[in-house]
Amino acid sequence: MAAWWSSPSPSPSLRHLLLLRPRFSISLNPTCVPGPLLRRHSHTRRLLFSSASSSTLTHGEDAPPAQSDGVVDVNPPRGTRDFPPEDMRLRTWLFDQFREVSRLMAFEEVDFPVLESEALFIRKAGEEITQQLYNFEDKGGRRVVLRPEITPSLARLVIKQGKSVSLPLKWFTIGQCWRYERMTRGRRREHYQWNMDIFGVPKVRAEAELLQAIVLFFERIGITSTDVGIRVSSRKVLQAVLNMYSVPEHLFAAVCVIVDKLGKLSRDEIERELISTGLSSEAVQGIIEVLSLKSLSKLEEVLGPQDGAVADLKKLFSFAEQYGYADWICFDASVVRGLAYYTGIVFEGFDREGQLRAICGGGRYDRLLSTFGSEDIPACGFGFGDAVIVELLKEKGLLPDMSRQIDDIVFPLDEALEGPASNIASSLRKKGRAVDLVEDKRLKWVFKHAERINASRLILVGSSEWERGMVRVKILSTREEFEVKAGELE
Amino acid sequence: MAAWWSSPSPSPSLRHLLLLRPRFSISLNPTCVPGPLLRRHSHTRRLLFSSASSSTLTHGEDAPPAQSDGVVDVNPPRGTRDFPPEDMRLRTWLFDQFREVSRLMAFEEVDFPVLESEALFIRKAGEEITQQLYNFEDKGGRRVVLRPEITPSLARLVIKQGKSVSLPLKWFTIGQCWRYERMTRGRRREHYQWNMDIFGVPKVRAEAELLQAIVLFFERIGITSTDVGIRVSSRKVLQAVLNMYSVPEHLFAAVCVIVDKLGKLSRDEIERELISTGLSSEAVQGIIEVLSLKSLSKLEEVLGPQDGAVADLKKLFSFAEQYGYADWICFDASVVRGLAYYTGIVFEGFDREGQLRAICGGGRYDRLLSTFGSEDIPACGFGFGDAVIVELLKEKGLLPDMSRQIDDIVFPLDEALEGPASNIASSLRKKGRAVDLVEDKRLKWVFKHAERINASRLILVGSSEWERGMVRVKILSTREEFEVKAGELE
Repeated sequence: MAAWWSSPSPSPSLRHLLLLRPRFSISLNPTCVPGPLLRRHSHTRRLLFSSASSSTLTHGEDAPPAQSDGVVDVNPPRGTRDFPPEDMRLRTWLFDQFREVSRLMAFEEVDFPVLESEALFIRKAGEEITQQLYNFEDKGGRRVVLRPEITPSLARLVIKQGKSVSLPLKWFTIGQCWRYERMTRGRRREHYQWNMDIFGVPKVRAEAELLQAIVLFFERIGITSTDVGIRVSSRKVLQAVLNMYSVPEHLFAAVCVIVDKLGKLSRDEIERELISTGLSSEAVQGIIEVLSLKSLSKLEEVLGPQDGAVADLKKLFSFAEQYGYADWICFDASVVRGLAYYTGIVFEGFDREGQLRAICGGGRYDRLLSTFGSEDIPACGFGFGDAVIVELLKEKGLLPDMSRQIDDIVFPLDEALEGPASNIASSLRKKGRAVDLVEDKRLKWVFKHAERINASRLILVGSSEWERGMVRVKILSTREEFEVKAGELE
Repeated sequence: MAAWWSSPSPSPSLRHLLLLRPRFSISLNPTCVPGPLLRRHSHTRRLLFSSASSSTLTHGEDAPPAQSDGVVDVNPPRGTRDFPPEDMRLRTWLFDQFREVSRLMAFEEVDFPVLESEALFIRKAGEEITQQLYNFEDKGGRRVVLRPEITPSLARLVIKQGKSVSLPLKWFTIGQCWRYERMTRGRRREHYQWNMDIFGVPKVRAEAELLQAIVLFFERIGITSTDVGIRVSSRKVLQAVLNMYSVPEHLFAAVCVIVDKLGKLSRDEIERELISTGLSSEAVQGIIEVLSLKSLSKLEEVLGPQDGAVADLKKLFSFAEQYGYADWICFDASVVRGLAYYTGIVFEGFDREGQLRAICGGGRYDRLLSTFGSEDIPACGFGFGDAVIVELLKEKGLLPDMSRQIDDIVFPLDEALEGPASNIASSLRKKGRAVDLVEDKRLKWVFKHAERINASRLILVGSSEWERGMVRVKILSTREEFEVKAGELE
């Protein structure tokens, strides 16, 4: 139907990467799909835009909109989508699932302006997200952006609310996020994202809760743990390696951002970038070796049982057993995520066939608030985009029936009966029925229309019946027909 | 609670205007509140922004955001709002009402990008809406805007869908709209707007349906026809007057836009503006005289019984009787609305106490599509903002109870019981219950928390009960307490 669940295949260069075998020995966690280290090609966390591909619903051409002869371009701006009714029904269904899971988890909904101050998103770690800001100067000379992600707005509001909020705080939001890419053709510039965030819980209980939310969502929409998994690691793993090689603290975020590009850039490029930040080639080799680990026991061998990352991860996997979603998650040290501010556990949902980009991603960000000049509060959260999940549902044949549904069609057979028809439609609506009032059409058209919009009943207002205060009712599923007193219609 | 229902009183200069008596004799429609011609101070149609007033939730200061010492401004951009949970609950409730009424009326939901091409909104009639565009150039050199209203996007999609849609088409949308005002302090720059539009119905049946939707909405939220009315007129009235004075056709839209400012600008200013478009002073006097009419019979006397405006309005008032909302509407020739593209019936909702700006507004726009270079389709619609209605609900004490609601709180009394607690919370959620899992708090805090979030039950996981596979349940409304087998919790 529409671009927002179009499933772009990996580009040829990416396909090439997918075939590469890593040169490290890999021990696999049984719940993890076998896959080379370089297979992941995650976007920046919380920026899971879909390609526009060839659909007519996204305006992805490179040429500026044609607008000769006073004819307005009928496409939405480049890289954006319209939602005609059938696409909107799917979006509403998806958002309803997001909201229902958030309700089950006892999260409260919040929202923020889609336009934010640029200052909220300026970070120096070289993230893709800050390089692709949809930013501009407003007429008052302020630097503003169409937000690329929601977490900084969330943190801003937490700081603003200050002592008036009681911790822990569990908030969710569904909002549109934007990016501006100059170079790439036909990529989407906006998507919607479901975010769930917990502030004030330092323990991995918070992560365990977030993972339950994600799994509950998958289960609700018919996705199983054989379709999808969630890779989990901790940035403390990378931190421990950097400590081993005495890499200074201030390089941590930049190293994470570079390492996250494994799968997008070649091994050589990654190594060059790491070296250029000032790392020794031993440190670089150490990093890449550790990132290939796919079993927690192997990690424990390398970092030791006292290591914080190991303890966190063990705790989280034990929670997973108790919550009942252990089948869904697996340890994978290569998960780093592309946002600068993560500090602990990080995770991302992936399709086990390895065809799609990350489905969702998140992690712990205990030190974001201090970058805004406030006192830190431990926090973690995830972003879940609207694009990849719909691609997956489509592939698995799990898209729900999205047809329109109407209760009644009221149709006066004669223009003189438009008054009674108004009255009947009006009172049925007041009784809670969805009523379409149709006029100036042939009866044949009305029957076709009734079928098209899945009407339950057709109410015909004809003069011979109306003289007796009656209308003709036709139940469309059974073809049953009868007369009813107009006032007794329910 | 929050700025988005803050109730700004009319400014002193507006109050002054409110006290002015018109110098024309006025005959009143009985359902209309007595009020002078100059009382209306409508905004441009579909641009019903609220003042930001003094609330902390809107960042309305004139000074640029303070940002010394690396401390980020915690306010959203000037003139925009955050929605913390309590405000979000109200917004969700309001949007749910919009959606439910739209469902009853058998409208389909659609959506569009908040960012649009500027070309869609460039019109030459001098509308406020085009003077306050939140526009800028994107990095690709395209002129774009944060849309000030939704109708042009709607028209764009109708053209794009072309023959694939079946007429009549009934669409609704709820979306954020933006404006950029340079001069005024503390005004809102964004608001949300519910739009309902019908394409393909040339008769006033379409207007009659739209008015029912508005009235159904008011009734659902507890507003009565003694609180609120809907003033109705037709632009054909003004058209007829312009014809009488042989004013050229191309001046029509500009004259409408000027005349809509009655109530904002002084009589003299309006007259000067009309004269400067090229109208004779006789035409100006004729216009102002006709606009003071408040009875349909008077209008018929002036324009004659054959006049199209009179026929349309009579038909609409007869529909109003049949639908059952005649109490809500009244004829008022001074309603013109501020958008250039209206061609026929126009209407606006107003509070009968005359304290607020227009609550909603709309009308027929049969010739919008041809301004985009396409074939015209008869169309009409309305916009209904989120600001004024909440001010009104607040004033009338009709804001619904917006407290949080949770089913269960699960609380392990001992850290060793976090496993069982996870399991219990997880399975209750799978059964559809909204569960908050609380840890590391004192029991006293948990009880207070339960009260604050309106929890129905508290489920205590204590070691002595757990040894027997039991948990303690407390029903918070009745203070009843009992033990249940953990596996039998429903």
